[in-house]
Amino acid sequence: MFGEILQGIVDGTSGALGAILMGYDGIAIDQHFKVCEGVDLSLIAVEYSNVLKEIRRTAEILGTGAMEEVSVRTERLMVIIRTLGSEYFIALAMERDGNFGKGRYLLVREAPRLREALA
Amino acid sequence: MFGEILQGIVDGTSGALGAILMGYDGIAIDQHFKVCEGVDLSLIAVEYSNVLKEIRRTAEILGTGAMEEVSVRTERLMVIIRTLGSEYFIALAMERDGNFGKGRYLLVREAPRLREALA
Repeated sequence: MFGEILQGIVDGTSGALGAILMGYDGIAIDQHFKVCEGVDLSLIAVEYSNVLKEIRRTAEILGTGAMEEVSVRTERLMVIIRTLGSEYFIALAMERDGNFGKGRYLLVREAPRLREALA
Repeated sequence: MFGEILQGIVDGTSGALGAILMGYDGIAIDQHFKVCEGVDLSLIAVEYSNVLKEIRRTAEILGTGAMEEVSVRTERLMVIIRTLGSEYFIALAMERDGNFGKGRYLLVREAPRLREALA
């Protein structure tokens, strides 16, 4: 179920390297990775789960409403994260010249299905 | 000098609320804010400077290259941050339905001018 949705997002986004469904505790529920050398997507997701908790806390302090989406671009990688309620998130990693807009669109489109399946 | 560039970015992005040029230490160099009730953009930038340090550290641990851009969307606000070397960054805050693509484009376009002026 989850795997199929994750694969659909990865296959539908040019430049995508993988997608992972994860809890804020850093424990993965499901994932779909393409084979890519030198990039440990599980480790990336675990590390970013800590950053997300920090951003969520910041958004709460600032009173700007719940965090919905975070994206980080580094020299070699782009990561888009979409929150799925208060316990889970989905992260999509792609090459830095991957199709950001398409990846983001697919995360928005699939989020309700994932939330429903998680409930 | 800085103020003019910041104003150009804010005026050129529909839905933009303000832009701020800041050090990672949370001290603002210059800023251009539209009047908007209930949103303290200076405070937002200071709080996000802490998040940025955390993301930068994470990117270093992961070996995915230097952080270049971070965006955070919450229920009421969108913030796009672009790094300007190792000491400074520029943050653009906009309404959540503001023109994300245009704002991002203007930050990319103006980053070299800002870096030059900061050097």
